[in-house]
Parts: sequence; C-alpha cells; structure tokens
Amino acid sequence: MPTSLEILHGEVISHMNTIQDVRAASSILNWDQETYMPEGAAEVRAEQIGTLDTIAHQLLTGNKALKFADAIRSFDGAAHKMPLLGIFLEDHERAVKLPEDLVRRTSKAQSLAHHVWLRARAESNYAVFMPALQELLDLKIEAAELYGYEANRYDALLNLWEPGVSVEQLNPVFDKLQAATKQILENIAPYSDRVSTVPMTRFYSKDKQLEFSRFISERLGFNFANGRIDLSAHPFCTSFSQFDVRLTTRVNENNLDSCLYGVIHETGHGLYEQGFAPELARTFGADGASMGIHESQSLFWETIITRTEEFWTFAMPHFEKIFGKTPYTPRDFYKATNAVTPSLIRVEADEITYNMHIILRYEIERDMVNRTIDLKDIPEVWNEKTRQNLGIIPPSDSQGCLQDIHWSFGGFGYFPSYTLGKLYAAMMWRVMQADIPFVRDYIRNGEFVPVLEWLRERVHKYGRTLKPGELIRRLTGRDLNAQDFVDYAYAKTADVYET
Amino acid sequence: MPTSLEILHGEVISHMNTIQDVRAASSILNWDQETYMPEGAAEVRAEQIGTLDTIAHQLLTGNKALKFADAIRSFDGAAHKMPLLGIFLEDHERAVKLPEDLVRRTSKAQSLAHHVWLRARAESNYAVFMPALQELLDLKIEAAELYGYEANRYDALLNLWEPGVSVEQLNPVFDKLQAATKQILENIAPYSDRVSTVPMTRFYSKDKQLEFSRFISERLGFNFANGRIDLSAHPFCTSFSQFDVRLTTRVNENNLDSCLYGVIHETGHGLYEQGFAPELARTFGADGASMGIHESQSLFWETIITRTEEFWTFAMPHFEKIFGKTPYTPRDFYKATNAVTPSLIRVEADEITYNMHIILRYEIERDMVNRTIDLKDIPEVWNEKTRQNLGIIPPSDSQGCLQDIHWSFGGFGYFPSYTLGKLYAAMMWRVMQADIPFVRDYIRNGEFVPVLEWLRERVHKYGRTLKPGELIRRLTGRDLNAQDFVDYAYAKTADVYET
Repeated sequence: MPTSLEILHGEVISHMNTIQDVRAASSILNWDQETYMPEGAAEVRAEQIGTLDTIAHQLLTGNKALKFADAIRSFDGAAHKMPLLGIFLEDHERAVKLPEDLVRRTSKAQSLAHHVWLRARAESNYAVFMPALQELLDLKIEAAELYGYEANRYDALLNLWEPGVSVEQLNPVFDKLQAATKQILENIAPYSDRVSTVPMTRFYSKDKQLEFSRFISERLGFNFANGRIDLSAHPFCTSFSQFDVRLTTRVNENNLDSCLYGVIHETGHGLYEQGFAPELARTFGADGASMGIHESQSLFWETIITRTEEFWTFAMPHFEKIFGKTPYTPRDFYKATNAVTPSLIRVEADEITYNMHIILRYEIERDMVNRTIDLKDIPEVWNEKTRQNLGIIPPSDSQGCLQDIHWSFGGFGYFPSYTLGKLYAAMMWRVMQADIPFVRDYIRNGEFVPVLEWLRERVHKYGRTLKPGELIRRLTGRDLNAQDFVDYAYAKTADVYET
Repeated sequence: MPTSLEILHGEVISHMNTIQDVRAASSILNWDQETYMPEGAAEVRAEQIGTLDTIAHQLLTGNKALKFADAIRSFDGAAHKMPLLGIFLEDHERAVKLPEDLVRRTSKAQSLAHHVWLRARAESNYAVFMPALQELLDLKIEAAELYGYEANRYDALLNLWEPGVSVEQLNPVFDKLQAATKQILENIAPYSDRVSTVPMTRFYSKDKQLEFSRFISERLGFNFANGRIDLSAHPFCTSFSQFDVRLTTRVNENNLDSCLYGVIHETGHGLYEQGFAPELARTFGADGASMGIHESQSLFWETIITRTEEFWTFAMPHFEKIFGKTPYTPRDFYKATNAVTPSLIRVEADEITYNMHIILRYEIERDMVNRTIDLKDIPEVWNEKTRQNLGIIPPSDSQGCLQDIHWSFGGFGYFPSYTLGKLYAAMMWRVMQADIPFVRDYIRNGEFVPVLEWLRERVHKYGRTLKPGELIRRLTGRDLNAQDFVDYAYAKTADVYET
C-alpha cells in the first residue's frame, strides 16, 4: 500500500495509462474495421477486439485495481481532491458490481440480438426481434438492480451515459419541450412553402463535397496534425488520445447536407476530444463529461454556429470557389438547412422535430425498464406516439420501432443524451452570446477562434474531470432546463419561416 | 495441471490466441502509424504500442505460461507431436531467458540508438553513432550469452531470425556465392551497353502505376478480400491474421521499378501470409518459418517469376491498356528490370550484386559479435570490402556503413536472411521447374495459379510449424546451398547481357 497520496496518485495514473492504452488499441481496431479493413477479416477482428476489451476489464477489476481502490478509499477525501482518483474509483466500482457471468451472458445476448435485429428490420417484423429484446432487457434490469438507484430503476441505466440525471428531472423538462415543439409545428405549418431544400439537394460531386467539408472543418478549428477524416458507412468520431482524433463521413451526391453537416457534427465531437487538457492524456479523464455534453459540442457547431445565415455568408465565396457559381443566396442556404418537416426516421429528422423522436423512445424504454409496458405492445405504442407527436404513422416496423440500433445492443438509457445535447448547447449559447456580444459578426467573418476558445476554457479542457451537472451549473448558473432551447427554437423557426 | 495432452493443447492454444490477438493489435497500431496516423500522435502511439508489447511479453512469461511450459515438458514428446505446443515452449523459453532488466535496458538503448543513427547518417559521421552502437552491441552480446549457442556466439543472434543456421554453414555458402558473383560481374562487364533501363525509367503517372501494380498483384493471386495495399514512406507487408494482410508501396513517377516490383515483392510476402492453414489463425504458427523463408517468397515472385521475359509478354497488353502504347518490347522490359550495376546502396541494388552487400555486412557483424573487430575500424573495413566486392568506394559514411537501419535497432544477425531468401528461392525454382515442366508457358499466359498452388502446398500452409531447414530439405531433398542460385544467376545474366 502506497505511503502517501502522491505516490498512490502516481501508481494509479500509471495503471490507468495501461488500461487507457489497451482501450485506445481497441478503438483503433474498431476504427480500422469501419474504414479500411478488408471484409474477410471480420471474424478474427471481433476476436481481437474481444481480447483487448477483456484485458482492459481485467486490469480495471483485478487484484491491483482492488488494492488501489481500497487505498483511495483509505485516504479521506482523495477521490474528491484528485479527480482522476475519483474517476478511477467510480469506474472500478461500477465494473466490479457486475459478476463476470452476467457480463458474459450480456455480451452474448447483445451479439445475438444485433443479428436478430438486422433480420427483423430487413423483414420489418418486430415479432422476430421481441424474444431477443426481452432477453437483453431482463439482463439490463438485472444490471440496473446491481448498479443500484434511488427513485427509478431507469436512472441506473440512464446514469451510465449521463451521470446524475434522473427520470424525476427529465420528465418535466421533456414535457415542456414536447409541448413547445407541438406549438412550433403549429406555428409554421401554414408557411411550409416558404422554405425550399433545393439549394442543398442539387448535384454536388463527391470530391468537391469532401474538399468543401474538410475546408470547413479545418476552418472551425479541427487540427489535422492531430486528426483526420475518412469515409465509412456511418459517420462517427473516435479518438485514441487528444492527439489522434478520427472523424468519418459519407457522401450523398444529391444532398450536400449529409456530408457537410455530418462532418461539422463530427468536427464538434472532435474539437471536444482535441481540447482535453494535455495532462489528461492516457487517463480516464480524457473523455467527455457525459454523452449529453459530448452531443452538445457536436450540435453546438452543427446547428447553432453553422446552420445560420452568418455562417453561409462567410462560406459563400469558398463554396463558389469549389462548386462554381450558385444562383442561391446565403439566406437560401440557411433556410434550406433549417427546413422543419415531421418525418418517420430519427436520424433524418431536423433540429426541431428530432426531440419528438427522442421523447417517445425515452418514454417507451423508461417503461420497459420499469416493466410497466408489455413488450408485445411496443409497435402499437410507438406508432400511436409518433402520430401524437408528429402527426404521421409509420407504415411498417422497419420505419417504426425497429429503425434504431440502440436496443439491439441493450443501450437503454442512451437516447436521452441526444436531446440533452440540444438543451445543453442552447444553454451554453445563451451564455456565450452574453460573453461574446459580437459572436454573430465573428461567425459572419469566418472567425471561429473566439467560439472555440470559449468552449475550450469552459467545457473541453476539463474532459471527464467535471460531472455534467456541475459543468453546466458552473457555466450557466442554472440546472438543466428546456427553456433556452425552446426560446432558440421559437426564434429560429420564426426567422426561417418568416412568420 | 491439465490431465490430458488434448486438454493441455486446448488451454495453451487459448492462451496463445490471447497473446496473438495482442500482438496483432500492436501490428495494427504500427501499420496505422506508417499509413494514416496524424503526425501529432507519434508520442502517445509509441506508448500504446509499448503497453501492448509489454502485455504480450507478460502473457508469454507469466505464471500461466510457466505452468503451461512445465506441463508441456512433462508430457513426453508433446512439443514434437503437437507443433504449436513446441512453438509455444520455444518462444516462452527464449523470452524467459532474458531478465526483465536486460529487456528494458535494450529497449531504451534501441530507442536512443535509433535517434543517434538518424543524426549520424544525416551528418554522415560514424563517430556520432559509435558509442550507441557499442552499447547496443554489448547488450546483444549479453543476450547472446543468455540464449546460448554451440560453436559461434553470432549463431545465437542469427537463429532469432533463421532457426538452425550457423556461421559454420554460412561461411562456405557465402564464399562460393561471392566468388561466383565476381565471376559474373567480370563476364558481363564488357557488355554493359547491351542493357538499357530506359523502358522502366520514363515518366509513369502515380495513379497509373498504382492501378497497374494492383492489377498485377491481384493477378498473381493476392486476395483483396483478405488484404489491401496502401501508401507509406517505406514499403512493407504486415498481417493481423491470414485473413487480413496489408501491403504498402511508394511511387517514383520516373521509375516504375520502385512501385511495381515493390508491390510484387510485398505481394510475395502477402501470399505467404494469406496461405497459412486456416487452423493456424490466432496462434504462433501463423508466421513465416523464418525471415529467410519469408524473403524467399517475396523474391520468388519479384525476381524468378516476374523479372522475366515471359512475365512481360503476359503483362504487355495490360501495361499498354493502362499506360498507352510503348515502343518497347517485352524483352526490352525484361532486360531493363535485370540490369546489373555495382552500386553503393543495398536497397537499390540489383538481384546479382545485392548479395555482395549482404556478405560484407554479415562478415562485419559476425566479427562484431565475436569482438574480433574494433568498432572504430568499421568504416574502413566497410569501404575496403565494398571496393573488393563491388569495385567502388563509398565517398561518405552515410553511403557506407551508416546506410542501413538494422544495427540501430540491434538487429545483428538479420542481414543474412535477405541472401538466404535468394538461395532458398532458387532451390525451390529448380524443383518447381521439374514439377511443372510448362511453368514458363503458364507465366507467359498469365496463369499463376499452378505456381501459387505449388508454393501453398509445399511452403505456405505450414506457417511456422516446420523449421526452415526441415522445410527446405523436404522440398528440395537438399540442404542450403548456393549452387542453384549461382546456376540461375549465370544463366540469367548470360541471357540478359547476351554473352
């Protein structure tokens, strides 16, 4: 047992470095799998990733880690005084809560459920998926009971992604957001012909889309000496340290939105990862404060900063240099990138209706985890909620309750992160506008440094060493609320639809 | 302790799978480092690779491995009956022979020596490198004493790359090769104007070179469902299992040889890796029998099969389809790719003079390891041997004894592999011509399947489960010799130079 807190700190960091290196290796294998790996390597790659994940788990739960955990607990207030010790203890304690047998059964059930889900979705038949979903749900409920919770079993799973948030806190926030969104949809309904998406949906060649998107990413501040952009089937951001952040995108030559805003979205994630304080490298602190905070960073850049007339005013000459003369104005592009249209598929939804997709998933999975909904009723409940929230009804399960991958890997509690990201981003935007009065002018001039520096100082540099609740309170002086987003959404839709 | 050999076998394989997965992960991180990694990630990447290598070493030498080793030894003949158990025991015993402290000191000295060598080479000043070289040499001699040897200390290091070969065996083989090479150089000297390299050294655009090289690689049999080709500063082949083999190349637009024969060379390595029996996946058996045998496979394709008039006869229409009409005949290309010219730099040497570069390195490092040469005399000895062997004298250390990376990572004993590869390849070629009488016609028709199948059955599928000596004896009925290569070299140079 180390004799001083300083020595303990050094030893724990060194052990954490080892674990983090193994995790980074696993991430590199995953990145390669999605970008360059030849198809025939899939089976062995799954084994290799499995081996690395097992080693990382063993290092986090083994004898050495147990001794470190005891030592950290023995120093009064150590976990608080030294945030990295606190994070190590937190992760260790969570990891040891689940018996190895449960971890193994869950991993097996996930792998099975994923394959069953792919088939069920292809056949658009929820009944095919239901038994696998039931098994995963039972395992996750077992895990939730082991993790423990105060008021609501769902909180235990929610907190895996968003520490400190609860059903009690989310219910009223989401209710308010839902009501406001309905009102907005009513407000703009008569004026739908005032927005055309044509400027974004003309033909734009793949190479030029990539060139333009890369230019914008670099201009926003993404550092290509510590990152890169590649192609993959689904866009994502991953990092192997703050010095090596990888974004991916895909291109639809008839829709610039997919590549451009995909890249900007992932750039937002990437700027967060590149912004962790250097001393957090190879520690558990080099991670987002939560999924919601991470999403707030991608959305901040994707929606608040760049789905704006100011951004398009700056971007226009660069756009025309690459794509040639366009008959459209910055305002045309601004409006085209902010069209609000209720639709069936979450990942294709606009900034405003997107939350409706999240709220219905939240309500359903919250009730699933509390066993207050019968799994066989899910398609019906899903369709009815879609009708109530968005005024449309999915014609099939594949366009309804089978559309998302999340439940197939047991990711109950994950969906709220997306909407929390929007709420956090709007809260930050309110404060940023006060802190940087001319922020819109900066954007119009393509000067993004003040925005990035503001986020770096207040959000990025802390990595995971501040809890999301604490981070957002320090930054905004308030707790999570829907009001800032609602204000932002009213104003933006009124401007876009000229109501 | 497992109760039966079968159970032990299963347990050892499973442990080997874990180690091999970690090694593969380390290789993936290395591959990424050489191909796509952003520059700013170098420092952290070195740590990550170091962590994985340490974990693999611990798994090979830890308690579990020690118990397995004891168990294998306790079953009479197990290591012989079950080759994978034998290989595991061999690697384990070699790994435990070196104390951790020596491993750590060596690793540190290597890292330092590499940086010093880069500087010394840039300054063309051997004196800068000598102290670091001395330190590494001392450490490697310490290791050689711990590994043990029968007749010559150098054998201990040579056997790290080429198990079973000795100085006693190499000396006469290399002497014979040296004498024959001198004779060949004398034979062709009067006719140097009969070969022009111009057909290969015109301008060929990068994209077209890559397209042509890739086409040839695929045509030779490289399976792109289990592999790929990327760009890197130095060409190499690495694999993460036989289902995922990565080649790299580089392009010089004024010399087709570099990219085309670079790709073919690496394709030869890659075909070997792709050809390991599937059941060897994730075991130590999924590796070459030795560096020399590995090199024999790259050289077989690069020199014996494709630096031929038959190959260019086949390739011509494909070449012209990609590059356009050429005034040169297949024979012109054949001759251009076989020009023999004594030169200073090993990696740029032709098939014939290349061995002279190896022999002089072999003689010097053999004497270094036996402490029969003073390190300060190396530049002089190097230059004198270059004069004797090739008739030219390096004007500077950077073009002389500082040109190769090998000594900077302590790779004493590695150089002979290159020439062993040539000798093995020529031995195989002699047998193949008897087994496949129409092999030249097949090549002329672009039918490479018979060649590949022959190598698959006799070399590839065994991976590391046959020792190089045993493999070559089974295949050719003879031990290592220089005669087959010498015969091949006389015949080829006589044809190319029309003597």
